[in-house]
Amino acid sequence: MTTSIDLKEFVFDRVLDENALAHTLAVLGTLPSSTTPFEPLRAIVRFERTALSATVASQLSSGILESTKQIGSTDIYSWFFAWLHKRDDFPDVKIYVICPATEVHIRKYTKQDVLMVRESPALYQSIVKPYILAFDPARTQWVQDILTGTAEASNILNASPDFLILPDMKWDTTNVSTLYLLALYTHSDVHCMRDLRKKPHLGMLKKLQRDAWRVVQDKWGIGRGGVRMYIHYQPSYYHFHVHIVHTGHVGLNGMAVGQAHLLDDIISLLELDPDDGSSILERMTFTYGLGTEHGLYKPMAAALAEVHDNVD
Amino acid sequence: MTTSIDLKEFVFDRVLDENALAHTLAVLGTLPSSTTPFEPLRAIVRFERTALSATVASQLSSGILESTKQIGSTDIYSWFFAWLHKRDDFPDVKIYVICPATEVHIRKYTKQDVLMVRESPALYQSIVKPYILAFDPARTQWVQDILTGTAEASNILNASPDFLILPDMKWDTTNVSTLYLLALYTHSDVHCMRDLRKKPHLGMLKKLQRDAWRVVQDKWGIGRGGVRMYIHYQPSYYHFHVHIVHTGHVGLNGMAVGQAHLLDDIISLLELDPDDGSSILERMTFTYGLGTEHGLYKPMAAALAEVHDNVD
Repeated sequence: MTTSIDLKEFVFDRVLDENALAHTLAVLGTLPSSTTPFEPLRAIVRFERTALSATVASQLSSGILESTKQIGSTDIYSWFFAWLHKRDDFPDVKIYVICPATEVHIRKYTKQDVLMVRESPALYQSIVKPYILAFDPARTQWVQDILTGTAEASNILNASPDFLILPDMKWDTTNVSTLYLLALYTHSDVHCMRDLRKKPHLGMLKKLQRDAWRVVQDKWGIGRGGVRMYIHYQPSYYHFHVHIVHTGHVGLNGMAVGQAHLLDDIISLLELDPDDGSSILERMTFTYGLGTEHGLYKPMAAALAEVHDNVD
Repeated sequence: MTTSIDLKEFVFDRVLDENALAHTLAVLGTLPSSTTPFEPLRAIVRFERTALSATVASQLSSGILESTKQIGSTDIYSWFFAWLHKRDDFPDVKIYVICPATEVHIRKYTKQDVLMVRESPALYQSIVKPYILAFDPARTQWVQDILTGTAEASNILNASPDFLILPDMKWDTTNVSTLYLLALYTHSDVHCMRDLRKKPHLGMLKKLQRDAWRVVQDKWGIGRGGVRMYIHYQPSYYHFHVHIVHTGHVGLNGMAVGQAHLLDDIISLLELDPDDGSSILERMTFTYGLGTEHGLYKPMAAALAEVHDNVD
């Protein structure tokens, strides 16, 4: 079935998501079915604009431009629209098709409204902690596979008793300017940032940072300060881990304030904690965005609506 | 001179910056000069891929696709490269030209290496605070013009004795999903986040937040939790201000952890401060990225190299 897709037969229904910054567009519609001619199949079509390469610029004088139209100019500045000659090695768009698409696919590709929620220590105890403890262990089986050496064993860059450092799946492992590594904690006492404490964890976090600096220096010649290390809250899985990303790699969604917390900031907060007593990570209210499809969205939205009603 | 630019005469020299996520490319080269034929002018040419609109998807069946090439498929997924018919209302790229370009322009458009620096309270006192106090007042004249009512008076959305809320210059003021407002503090005792204290400022920050929620609710129907409010450290100017951005507007560079701090998190930290004594905002070490052209880059890089030498 997949081999017979003719995109010209796509019947447009509605836009699911449009991202002008990322130059992507996801739409829902239908494609004809070869087995049930009167029941077309639902299809998601996702368009992504192809990126420009330096070739475009270097070939301006050798005729890559088909035509240009000056839009405006002032002083030393001018701006144009331009149309390029068609080239076999430079398509206009990449297109990704899911057909037949289920409700789950449609939800996944639909832009979610994001609600900023304030998680007080009380809401953490009553809503978030139970949610974390009930998280399906099958969803972190891949972490266990890495920790036990069943998977990714040949990719481990640094192994210490407390954590492993390896390339993140999102990285192509070749382009250093988009370097993305993952540090996985080997123990199971830290589900998330809220569980970190000065006495048992501060030394481990500092060692993790030093080891990460050494790995990127030794392997890719990146100096100290050349990577950004951060922790997600809420993370996508509740086994403690740290993201290690090249400082030149910007614009990632997962780097946004409210979801990402710098490892350095967490270290600084723990350093200021008293040696005993509750940690500031227990006492703080953390604010983050939740998409409407997130498992915490409904309970947190309901709890906060109640809080607001009482305050207003 | 600007009217005579013919991009086909551009001679490529080198790439200044390439951003695959944002689909932009800035290059340096030369364009012929009409007055000095043997001395071509240096020119910066910045390409930006045009965004896709829903029109593209809705017109698949009416022949917007010139050709497609299937790249792969598996199960219900398939992916293609596609070439579109040329349309006068849909250029391939927008091009922005600066000619003649100076060294300052070239630096501005050149990708800067970013160094993560850890600003301890001691480094704040010895390097950052003097830098802030020496900041040229002419660079914040525009803030004074707004505060005194000389500029933007008709755009003020909310005025209170302590701050003004108005649309940020980066916003087109029409597309609600990219809403971007600015709250400007009316007094001059807070240069940056480090100056905030519980007693004089906590109440003001909470009122600012409530007022911002009310403005976006009344004017655009955005519910509480529908905007992200954050503070930059380092900011681009040292008069205290807060960014108010729609939660759906993601991928902005200024929203990255390390530069952006949620107003909610700052409020939470101040709430946990004792009523007297030093604030955690004075005692914390803050970590952020500095581009090589930032005024703090050289002194901070030098100071940190010394710290590292002593530790290693």
